[in-house]
Amino acid sequence: MLNLRPIFFAIGLMLAILSATMILPALVDLADANSDWRAFLAAAVFTFFVGGLLVLMTFDDRQIELSVKDAFLLTTLSWVMLCAFAALPFIGVGISYTDAFFETMSGLTTTGSTVLTGLDSLPRGVLLWRALLNGIGGIGIIVMALLILPYLRVGGMQLFRAESSDKSEKIVPRALELVSATAGVYVGLLVLCAVVYALLGMSIFDAICHSMATLATGGFSTHDLSFKFFQSPAIEWSGTFFMALGALPFVVLIQAMSGGPRALWRDEQVRGFIGFLIVVTLILAMWYSMTRGVPLTDAVRLSAFNVTSIVTTTGFVSDDYTQWGTFAIGLFFLLTFVGGCSGSTAGAIKIYRLQVAGLLTRRHFTHLISPNRIVTLSYNGRRLPDDVPFSVVAFLAIYMATVGIFTVLLTGMGLDLTTSLSSAAQALGNVGPGFGDIVGPSGNFATLPAPAKWVLALAMLLGRLELFTVLVLFRPEFWRS
Amino acid sequence: MLNLRPIFFAIGLMLAILSATMILPALVDLADANSDWRAFLAAAVFTFFVGGLLVLMTFDDRQIELSVKDAFLLTTLSWVMLCAFAALPFIGVGISYTDAFFETMSGLTTTGSTVLTGLDSLPRGVLLWRALLNGIGGIGIIVMALLILPYLRVGGMQLFRAESSDKSEKIVPRALELVSATAGVYVGLLVLCAVVYALLGMSIFDAICHSMATLATGGFSTHDLSFKFFQSPAIEWSGTFFMALGALPFVVLIQAMSGGPRALWRDEQVRGFIGFLIVVTLILAMWYSMTRGVPLTDAVRLSAFNVTSIVTTTGFVSDDYTQWGTFAIGLFFLLTFVGGCSGSTAGAIKIYRLQVAGLLTRRHFTHLISPNRIVTLSYNGRRLPDDVPFSVVAFLAIYMATVGIFTVLLTGMGLDLTTSLSSAAQALGNVGPGFGDIVGPSGNFATLPAPAKWVLALAMLLGRLELFTVLVLFRPEFWRS
Repeated sequence: MLNLRPIFFAIGLMLAILSATMILPALVDLADANSDWRAFLAAAVFTFFVGGLLVLMTFDDRQIELSVKDAFLLTTLSWVMLCAFAALPFIGVGISYTDAFFETMSGLTTTGSTVLTGLDSLPRGVLLWRALLNGIGGIGIIVMALLILPYLRVGGMQLFRAESSDKSEKIVPRALELVSATAGVYVGLLVLCAVVYALLGMSIFDAICHSMATLATGGFSTHDLSFKFFQSPAIEWSGTFFMALGALPFVVLIQAMSGGPRALWRDEQVRGFIGFLIVVTLILAMWYSMTRGVPLTDAVRLSAFNVTSIVTTTGFVSDDYTQWGTFAIGLFFLLTFVGGCSGSTAGAIKIYRLQVAGLLTRRHFTHLISPNRIVTLSYNGRRLPDDVPFSVVAFLAIYMATVGIFTVLLTGMGLDLTTSLSSAAQALGNVGPGFGDIVGPSGNFATLPAPAKWVLALAMLLGRLELFTVLVLFRPEFWRS
Repeated sequence: MLNLRPIFFAIGLMLAILSATMILPALVDLADANSDWRAFLAAAVFTFFVGGLLVLMTFDDRQIELSVKDAFLLTTLSWVMLCAFAALPFIGVGISYTDAFFETMSGLTTTGSTVLTGLDSLPRGVLLWRALLNGIGGIGIIVMALLILPYLRVGGMQLFRAESSDKSEKIVPRALELVSATAGVYVGLLVLCAVVYALLGMSIFDAICHSMATLATGGFSTHDLSFKFFQSPAIEWSGTFFMALGALPFVVLIQAMSGGPRALWRDEQVRGFIGFLIVVTLILAMWYSMTRGVPLTDAVRLSAFNVTSIVTTTGFVSDDYTQWGTFAIGLFFLLTFVGGCSGSTAGAIKIYRLQVAGLLTRRHFTHLISPNRIVTLSYNGRRLPDDVPFSVVAFLAIYMATVGIFTVLLTGMGLDLTTSLSSAAQALGNVGPGFGDIVGPSGNFATLPAPAKWVLALAMLLGRLELFTVLVLFRPEFWRS
């Protein structure tokens, strides 16, 4: 039996909190004397009303344990409900429901694909709301990854949680403390990033919006040109730095803040992630510089920003890298699948899965060569738990199969192969840009047919919730008591 | 320590047999009064000389057991050596070494991609040699899958071998008997297919060539238009039938011939394969008929032929399906990965791996919903061996990673994303056609840059030898004693 009462109680609470955040864009529009403030206020009131009603209807002072099934349903349902209500302000300002839902899902899952054009001339309320969707989504993902997914044994965090508690420097032990420490670090980094952006020349408003979109690895910009708008190497480098920071495991970030930056380098995932970024950046920069005659310093900067943006699944662009040549296109296509670290705001496959898959491949080869040799696998300084190898490779296989199925669905809606494949891959990885005129870094998702937008929104949700959390709801046995 | 002596002895024997087959095209050219016969004869003499020398130098009447390492090296080395020598006749008739090696690798791995243009006007010797490469490759793959790969624990045949010996109707028990039974069935089917083709209107020469290319799921045609040349629904349907036959497990075919066709239906892989072909054919035919106004009977025939061709990794075409619309392109792209049955001449991922992956996914979901439930997996009527789940998903993950890496390599040579991705996928799956102007069903690989041809030839070899057999040679520990 599913416990619907506490599920709807939790969703009601989330909606009430969401409604409060809608006041911010309302205030901005009011200050700008833009009548959009009514849409935000109306959405806030309605969302608060529904949320409050749910809380009141389901309140029960007996403590109730959530079963695993309840937690699966709660996770998926809360993301869908939050998206549905967070889309209301967009509808209020005259955007179609399809576009509003797509934009909201893209924002909350920190994907960053947009159907809105002419961002530079949009009212600041809408722009702030988009940034807030990234910001809310980012903290939502981290809290979910820390608290709920390990309980569901999805997303591989059990690997890191157990590891952290082994160490002598004790990580904040209890759930609520962990969440508040995470929220503290998140807000602290948001402020720091915004201050840096503002000092380097962004307007205060742009600095705040881009700070949220950066650290949430979301990628919603306030300009059609994204980071290219600022024409500032310093802003580009700081964007690179903060995007990478957003894709680091927050637990390790907290350790680093209390125990010094060595904690970062001790973490195998972080080492692999940083090393990967540097190697790929340099290869691409050298190739770009040599084949196009771009000065190496410019090539390194452009390569670093855009590689970091795609690998961290942020989706900002500082140049249309699809104009750099076929090798850049092939490489960025592959990078769409990589992703940042587990326990961060980044999406896609994630570094630790690739590292574990690498270990397993090596062991498989050893096993083929010397069938009787016993190889013990260790990752990040401890023995790999028995259930991890299979769940990692199964995730990889299902991830690829999902990309394939979504590609065929999209071609069935009349999109060409490159558009279909790259938009399916980027949506599932919560990356942002794909390839081609429509979904490429200089394109816009606005002209996609409406069914394609719904399919991509579903792909974003699937990717954000690490596939299994959503797919498990489609198994008949989930609904059997 | 590697036993190089027996390895080169075996390769010497294979080269001697190969040289004998070169006499056939020499005779045909001689009958046609075409001077190419000298090239074939010269290649035959040289190959026989080298093969004979190897045999003489390494002959040793003590029986030597091949170690696992020896068998890995023998497998990869023999394919490469056979390709290198089988390419000699092409060089003799004036084809560049790159093109000759590409064409030969494509033929022996039964891929079917071609760099030769104007097939219809080529001398019959060259056309027969191409067909023979398909035919030799086909029997080579089956023998390798039956005898060598199970010993190497690659390719999943252990799954089926163990199963067969459990049954009451005893399958030919000893290796040599199994090989001769297989060769008998293979030759019998070749004759049957050629007779059917000839009765339906092909010339005797075309019937013989296409019979080899069909049953080996190779796909080399004697006409640029491939099966579209014949403009005969009956030939198309018989091609569909024999391609599907070539993609069935030969062990099961032997069982069916001795014990009746029920053996086919009892096999879970065969059921899945046939069911998959029927469902996909009907979906595509209905879509094609509805969106393009093609009569349903024509749509079913065209859909059946081309779907069967790609799924069995043959690569014949009876129409340019990339002109049918985006959905057809997306679907055929996905079909590039599927493949036929294990223990057949078909390549790519193969049906049993997809079925096992499906079972594992279902179990993973059950495990997520009810963590304490124990689920025993059975496949094809018996319990799944413990090592199969992991090796299947690892294969899937490495297969996809290899496609990705080869895609980037090809984009680095200036090919666009669609061409790079689809040619990498088709080469690794030994399929034949990709997408786009160059490698698509109406295109030709001739204009690819030379490095791209070598890269694709390597991909064909990797795919044909089920990845691990080749990749294991690149592990340093393989070469340590």
